[in-house]
Order: sequence, then structure tokens, then C-alpha cells
Amino acid sequence: MEFDLIARIRSRAKQRADVVIGIGDDAAVLRPAAGRELVVTTDVLNEGVHFLASDAPADIGWKALAVNLSDLAAMGAAPAWCTLSLALPDADDAWCDAMLDGFFELADAHGVALVGGDTTRGPLALGVTAMGQAAPGQSLRRDAARPGDEVWVSGTLGDAAAALALGRGGGGVDAFLRSRLQRPTPRLALGAALGGLAHACIDLSDGLVSDLGHICAASGVAAEVRLEALPASPALRASGEDATRWSWQAAGGDDYELCFTAPLTARDAIVGAAAEAGVPVTRVGTIMQAREGGPKVRLLDLSGQAWQPNRTGYQHFAT
Amino acid sequence: MEFDLIARIRSRAKQRADVVIGIGDDAAVLRPAAGRELVVTTDVLNEGVHFLASDAPADIGWKALAVNLSDLAAMGAAPAWCTLSLALPDADDAWCDAMLDGFFELADAHGVALVGGDTTRGPLALGVTAMGQAAPGQSLRRDAARPGDEVWVSGTLGDAAAALALGRGGGGVDAFLRSRLQRPTPRLALGAALGGLAHACIDLSDGLVSDLGHICAASGVAAEVRLEALPASPALRASGEDATRWSWQAAGGDDYELCFTAPLTARDAIVGAAAEAGVPVTRVGTIMQAREGGPKVRLLDLSGQAWQPNRTGYQHFAT
Repeated sequence: MEFDLIARIRSRAKQRADVVIGIGDDAAVLRPAAGRELVVTTDVLNEGVHFLASDAPADIGWKALAVNLSDLAAMGAAPAWCTLSLALPDADDAWCDAMLDGFFELADAHGVALVGGDTTRGPLALGVTAMGQAAPGQSLRRDAARPGDEVWVSGTLGDAAAALALGRGGGGVDAFLRSRLQRPTPRLALGAALGGLAHACIDLSDGLVSDLGHICAASGVAAEVRLEALPASPALRASGEDATRWSWQAAGGDDYELCFTAPLTARDAIVGAAAEAGVPVTRVGTIMQAREGGPKVRLLDLSGQAWQPNRTGYQHFAT
Repeated sequence: MEFDLIARIRSRAKQRADVVIGIGDDAAVLRPAAGRELVVTTDVLNEGVHFLASDAPADIGWKALAVNLSDLAAMGAAPAWCTLSLALPDADDAWCDAMLDGFFELADAHGVALVGGDTTRGPLALGVTAMGQAAPGQSLRRDAARPGDEVWVSGTLGDAAAALALGRGGGGVDAFLRSRLQRPTPRLALGAALGGLAHACIDLSDGLVSDLGHICAASGVAAEVRLEALPASPALRASGEDATRWSWQAAGGDDYELCFTAPLTARDAIVGAAAEAGVPVTRVGTIMQAREGGPKVRLLDLSGQAWQPNRTGYQHFAT
């Protein structure tokens, strides 16, 4: 069965000119572009933790790749190749084919070649390693934020958290919000355009407070964020009152938007780059000097008072 | 908890000069050697399938990396970097530290830098992606065996299968056999030395009949293997009668030796390369023309008669 499944996956994998050996040998052999750095990330989605067995398999396949491409976007890298490790509780051809529909829809859209992987029997999990390339020294790091930088985010925040919360509540979930949770869009064009413009960058997987906090920790700075500046979709605005919405926007994960910092002098260039990438960007706060004992990320409400969300980001292994 | 675990892993990861950004950003940034091809493989070990929860955690960590480095060895690549995806049912610091002891013992021995990964809550599993480099066109492929080639294997065969079978039988297991199952040695020096000498190569993870069968299928050839030529360790010879031993050697997995094919003219050079790599190699058979309807791999007993092992290799999802 394993070999049949691999053959079916292999028949759907698109080739690239820089793939010397793809699926079907002990390892893939790839030809990196001359003078480029290699950018590598890996993320696993586990059933029951990152998705439900009842989710549409095409959405699961899409998201397993999307969260990895989002990491490449946050580095400013151009995606090239990936591997897929698939643990399956039993051999379900229809489920696999549907999952691959979503996986390859996203892979093909970005010219990413699936070059290898592994299939094992086990509780349902999808592990992806994505590889991309970037010009030397152009990668967007977490540790490059500086006091005085403006804090930017792409797209809208809180949609995915709202879909998750409203779905758990048993109510109907707006189709737009649901699609934001199940089919996140890796901001690859924007990330690539930010090289040389932005200082620090991260993708928003765990939530703004948590992820911007990583930038602050790595850069030795703090941040202030104005809640009313956080970009909200019409669907999100329609879904609840301010405090609930702000909690989703500030502390909810799974948006896979980019959060980046840049000097004021880069403002016009960033707006231009975002327009070219077709992604709205919004200034939501400022990088400050770190203060001993102070919070890394301070949220300010309409009156400029510090504000606390209902929960602070998603942590695996959190009690 | 996740961030503590990542910090602990990060503190133990050795750096390399070609690692621009390692653990701690959205992705790793690496500097490939100029003019080299990139060789990538990924394999997951699942508890209950590839190891038992009662196995020593250091052995599990070693093996998770070893099976991937073995794939790089089978391509003739020099290992450079890896990522580790860790799914844990609960946060067990002592288990993780012990697992990392084995993982880093092997990584450090080969100068492999751990540059990223992922930790999630889920049934115990270790996924590794290993990356190496090879000279263009020098990778050892599965599809390059030719009729008339001799079939070679490194080391000894059947030790791991014997350890597994004897352990399941409830009897005592010889320490050497057990170490062969739990701490396989990736044949990296030998694989690197075979570039330009061997035609086809694969590592023996599923068993000789199965894995040499992959070479035959990819190359459009068949193979004959002489059972009495299969190299056996003294411990294996002491552990059972011929038929049982031959089944372990021909069809048992987990040896992680290299199986390769080469023309007769390369014989002396291969013996020399193996001596330099410090690994014994043995000629065990011959590559033939494929015959319509015939078996890919034919095992011959002492009298030259076709022989069948008790089981034919390990397949995930096999019923």
C-alpha cells in the first residue's frame, strides 16, 4: 500500500528545471541557484491539535503547506521545493486524493515542487519541510527591530480566531471567516518585496501579542500597539463587540499575516511594495526601548490605556 | 513549555560556518557550497511502528537521525544540516534531554547542524529532514544498475531483524545484535567514496529483497543473489539455523547498510574505497536482464536453486 500511495503522489508532483532527482530515490537532488541562500522551515499539523478529523481533507492539505510557505514569506524567501511526511491511521485513498487536491492547488500556484517525503502508519499528521531561496543578507530576521520603527501588519487580523471561537460555540460561521481559518494565504509576494525595506518580520501564527513579542525578545526592544488601528474585516466587525474582537485580533492565532517593523523613512516604499503585491498593509504601532520588567508588547485602547486580551496567544503544551 | 523546550534544544545545537540563521527565526538560512547539488531526505519514526515507548530515548534520538543520514549516504552526499519535528504526548524534560543525547551524539560525529524544527503535542513521533551536498552528477541513483553489474552490500546483514525477532520471542538478545537494531551506523564515508565508482545504490531499510527490488524496478533489470555470500556477523551465525538466518538477511529490514551495483572493472577500486572508509563490502550477486513475469530479485541457495524467505520485507500499511 505504501508504494501505491507514493506512486499516486509522485504522479501529481510537478517538476521544476532545478529538480535533478525528485520523488522515488533515497533522497531528492536539487540544484540551488548560484549565489543564493537556502531558506528552510518545517511544521507539522496534528489531528486534534491543528485540525479536526472532520475538516475537509483539501483544506488540511492546503494548510499544511500554507503554514510553511508563510514562514518562507516571513523571511522574504522565494519558495522552491518541499517534502511531505504523512502519517495515516489507515490507508484511505479517497481522503489522500482530496488532501492532495488542496496541497497541490497551493503548491502549483507558487511553483513549488514536491520532491520527497515519507508515509507511515500512525495518528493522522502532516509534516512539511519547505525550502526557498533568498539573496544573501536579504532575509527578514526577527532580531532586527529598532526603537522608532513602525509596526506593520498585512491583511486583516482576528478572522481565523473568530471562526474557531464561533465554530466551537456551535453557531454558524461566516464563510469568509471560515476560509481565513482553513485556507490561509501565505504572503509570499509581500515578503519578497519587503527585503531591504523592513527591519524585522514574523508571520502571525500564534497571535500578534505572542509573535510580535518574539520580535521584541529577539531584538531587545518593546512594542506598543493601538487596538483601534488593528485591521478588521467587515465580517469580523459584524461578528461581535469591540472587546471580543480585539482579543481575537491581538491574541488569536492562525491568521498567517506578516507582522514587520520598518523605519518611518520606508513608509512610502512599503505602501508601494504592498500595492504591487496586492496586499493591504496597516501601521498598528511603534517599537520602543525595552523597559526592565515591562511587557514586551503593550496594547493601548482608545483612551491610550493599557489593555489585556482575554487570552494571550496559542502555546502548544500550555496548561 | 514549547518555548522552554526549543530553548533547550537550541542551546545544544552546534553551529557551522555555513549557517547564517539557525534555530529561533521563522526559518533557517543556510549558505550552500558553490557548485554543489543539494540532497534532501525526510523520514519519520512513530512510536509503536518504528520504536517502542520502552526503548531508550537516546537510542530513539540516534536512530531518527541515523535513518536520514543513511539516505544521504545512499546518494553519496556529504551531510550538512537537519531539522527535527517532535510530537510529544506530554512535556517530559528528562525524556527529551536523553533523546537529544543520542541525536546530538550522531549529529556532532558527522558535523551536522540542527537548524530548525517544530514541537507539537501529539502521539510520540520524531520527524527529521536531513540535507547534504554532492558534486553535480555524482549522486548515486536507484535507476542506474546495468546487466552484468555485481551487487555489493556493506557490513553484515540480518543483525537488526534477528534482534527484533529474538526480542519479540521473549528471549535474551545479544548486545551486538541489539546495538545494530537500535544504533544503526549510516555509511556516509563509504557512500561518498562510491561516487563515480558505483552505478546504483540504495540503503537497506526494508530488507535486501525489497530494497534491491527498488533498484531493479527503477533500472529495468533483475538480480540474482547467492544466499551463502550474504555477510553474517558471528553473533548472527550463533543465533539460529541457516533458513532462519537467511530470511533475516534477505528479507529483514533496519540494517541500514548500503546495497550498490558496479561493473566488474570497478572491483578493485571499490575494495580500496571501502578499506579507506573502514567498512567491509561483499559481493553477493549479479544484475541480469529483466525477464517478463520473472521475480525482480531471485535468491539462490547452496545448490543454485531458487529460495523463498519466510517473509518479504517490511511494508508500512501491509495487511
